[in-house]
Amino acid sequence: MNESTFPGTQHLPSSMEPIPSTPDPAPATPAEPTPQHTPAPPSPARTVVTPPSNYAEMPRPTAKLTAEDMAPVNDPHGPRNKIGPTGRPLPDLPEVKPPTRRGPAQVIAMCNQKGGVGKTTTTINLGAAIAETGRKVLLIDFDPQGSASIGLGVQPHDLELSVYNLLMQRDITPAEVIQATRVDNLDLLPANIDLSAAEVQLVQEVAREYTLQRVLEPIIPLYDVILIDCAPSLGLLTVNALTASNGIVVPLECEFFALRGLAMLTDTIGKVQDRLNPKLEIVGILGTMFDGRTTHAREVLDRVVQAFDERVFHTVIRRTVKFPETTVVGEPITTYAPSSQAATQYRDLAKEVLARCPVG
Amino acid sequence: MNESTFPGTQHLPSSMEPIPSTPDPAPATPAEPTPQHTPAPPSPARTVVTPPSNYAEMPRPTAKLTAEDMAPVNDPHGPRNKIGPTGRPLPDLPEVKPPTRRGPAQVIAMCNQKGGVGKTTTTINLGAAIAETGRKVLLIDFDPQGSASIGLGVQPHDLELSVYNLLMQRDITPAEVIQATRVDNLDLLPANIDLSAAEVQLVQEVAREYTLQRVLEPIIPLYDVILIDCAPSLGLLTVNALTASNGIVVPLECEFFALRGLAMLTDTIGKVQDRLNPKLEIVGILGTMFDGRTTHAREVLDRVVQAFDERVFHTVIRRTVKFPETTVVGEPITTYAPSSQAATQYRDLAKEVLARCPVG
Repeated sequence: MNESTFPGTQHLPSSMEPIPSTPDPAPATPAEPTPQHTPAPPSPARTVVTPPSNYAEMPRPTAKLTAEDMAPVNDPHGPRNKIGPTGRPLPDLPEVKPPTRRGPAQVIAMCNQKGGVGKTTTTINLGAAIAETGRKVLLIDFDPQGSASIGLGVQPHDLELSVYNLLMQRDITPAEVIQATRVDNLDLLPANIDLSAAEVQLVQEVAREYTLQRVLEPIIPLYDVILIDCAPSLGLLTVNALTASNGIVVPLECEFFALRGLAMLTDTIGKVQDRLNPKLEIVGILGTMFDGRTTHAREVLDRVVQAFDERVFHTVIRRTVKFPETTVVGEPITTYAPSSQAATQYRDLAKEVLARCPVG
Repeated sequence: MNESTFPGTQHLPSSMEPIPSTPDPAPATPAEPTPQHTPAPPSPARTVVTPPSNYAEMPRPTAKLTAEDMAPVNDPHGPRNKIGPTGRPLPDLPEVKPPTRRGPAQVIAMCNQKGGVGKTTTTINLGAAIAETGRKVLLIDFDPQGSASIGLGVQPHDLELSVYNLLMQRDITPAEVIQATRVDNLDLLPANIDLSAAEVQLVQEVAREYTLQRVLEPIIPLYDVILIDCAPSLGLLTVNALTASNGIVVPLECEFFALRGLAMLTDTIGKVQDRLNPKLEIVGILGTMFDGRTTHAREVLDRVVQAFDERVFHTVIRRTVKFPETTVVGEPITTYAPSSQAATQYRDLAKEVLARCPVG
C-alpha cells in the first residue's frame, strides 16, 4: 500500500463499525427544518474522507461576530432552528439525574495526536461539567507538559509526587498523588515533565502497555468518571491511556487538515482494540474551535458525520475569546463564567457523554 | 531510590563527563572584568542542581527594556564588558572560514522534551546561519506537529511525501522527500501529522531505534550539517533521532524549573550512549528566552554552568518580539531581519557549533 495516499476511513478495521451496545443519545425530536436547512440525505455507506486540495482557498474568518453567530448553536429553539452545527436535527438532550450510587468509573481517554485542538480545555471543562451533576470525577493529566494541571491551578514544577511516581514506583498509592481541586467533586492526578521519562523507562517493563490500567484499578470504584488528558502523540503513554480506558472522546479542530490525523488515530485505536483492549469504544468525536462565520467548519463536520455517523457529538465547541483567560486563572470556565455560552456548551457535552456512558 | 526527589546531575553517567576530544571554542581573551562583574570562582566539583523552592518569589520581568538590555550580550567590546551572560569571560569567536570540501555531515539532534523552549526557532535559525557560511545544511523536521516545516514556509498538510514515508517505506528515497527552501544551502526534510503513526508502527520493526540512522546513511556525504528538530517527548522518535546523531544541542529556557527536565534528558542521553550510540556527545546547552532584566536568568545559567561547564554555549538567545513574526512569514530571522540582534545571536551560535563540530 502506498502510504503517501491519504488513508481514508475505508481502512478502518471492522471492529471500528458502530458499536450497537453504546446507547444512542436521546432520540431526536422530529425535525422540522426550514427548507434552506434541509440536511443532505444520509449516505448509505461509509464514504472516503479526503481533504480538499483547495482548502487554502476556503473562505477565511472575517473579523466580526454576528448576533446569529453568538446564538447558542446547541439550542433547539434558537435562531438556528432545529438543525445543529453537525447538519443533523438537534436532540432534546435529557436533563442529567443526580447519581444514585458511586461508580464503577467510566474511564474515558481524551485523545488526539494533533496538538492545539482544544483537548486540555475540553478535558477540564467536561470534567467540571460532569462534576456539577454530583458525579465524582478524576482528571488524569497524562501529558508531560502538564497543561491540565496548570489549567486547574497546579504548578507542575512544584509537585513532589505526580502520575509519574504512581506509574514507576510500586510503593506509591493513588491517594498520595491525587489532589482535590477548587471545583467540587473534581480531583486531579497531576503531571509534570517527569512523565516524559516514563516514555523511555516503560519500554523495558513487562506488560508496559498495562501500567496505567494496573495503577488505576483500585480507584475505579471511588469515581464515576475518570478523564485522561493524553499528550499529543501516539507514543507509549497514549497507548497506556487507551489500554486503561473503556471509551475515547476525540476533540477535532473543525479544519480540513484535521481529517488526516483522524484516520491515523482511528487506525491506532483499532490496533489497541485488537491487541490490548477489546472493550475500548469511541464515545464520540467532538468538533472544537467551530467557527460559524464560514461554511468551512460545517463542511468539515459534514465529512466527519459521513464517516462516523451518530458517534459525532451534536454539541460543538465554538472558538471564544474566553478560553485563554481560564488557563490563566487556573479554573474551568464552568466556574469562572458559569452562565457563558462556552460553559453551556460543556454542560451539553456532559449530557451527551453521560447518555452514551451512563454512570452513577 | 525515591524518584520524587529531584534527580540532580550527580546521577549523570560517567560517559557524560566532559569529552576531551571535543575541541574547545577559541581560548578566552584574558578577562578584564570590572569588579562588580567578577564571576564566582569556579566550583571545584560538580554541584547538585536543585530548583529553588521559592522560584515563585523570584523577581518578575518589568515591562521596559533598558538600553543596556538591548546591547548585544555576546559582544566582547560592548557595555557588558567581557563577561558573558553565562558568567564566564566571552571568547572572541573565530570567524568561520568557507568550506573547503563537502561533508561528511555532522548530525546534530536539537532536543528537549519540554515544549515551548525555542527548539524549533533555534533549529531553523541555527541552520540558516550555518548555511550562510557556505555549508550545505539539511533540516529534518522530526515532530509530527510540523512546526519546523511551517517555519520554513511549508504547509505540512499539503505534503504528498514526508519523513514518515521515508521511515516506513523502503522504496522511498531521501531525494523524493527533501525540499529546497528559500534559503540558499538549506534543505528541508519535512514532517506532518503522519509522523505520529510512526511512533506506533516502529515499535514492531526490527532495529526500530535505528530506522532514521538507516535512511540517513546515503545522504551523509551530501551535507555538511544535518539538524534534527525533535518532538518535545522522549518517545521512540526522539530515541531514533539520538541514535542517528553524533551530537546534541539542548535548548534550555532560562527558568529554574527547566533544570528538572534537563536531568531527565541527560539520563536518557546516557542510556542511548550506553545501549545504542556510543558516539553521541552533547555539543552544547543553549540558554534560550534569556531575559537580562532579572537576575533569575543569570542564576539559572550559573547553575547550568556549574553542572555542564564548557559545554554551555557562551551565546544565549534572548527573548525578542521578532520571533512570532518569523513563524508567520515562514523564513529564518537571519534572512527576514538579517542585521537584527537575534540574527547576530544565531550567527554567534553557528560559530560556536562549528568550532565544536568542525566540518567542511
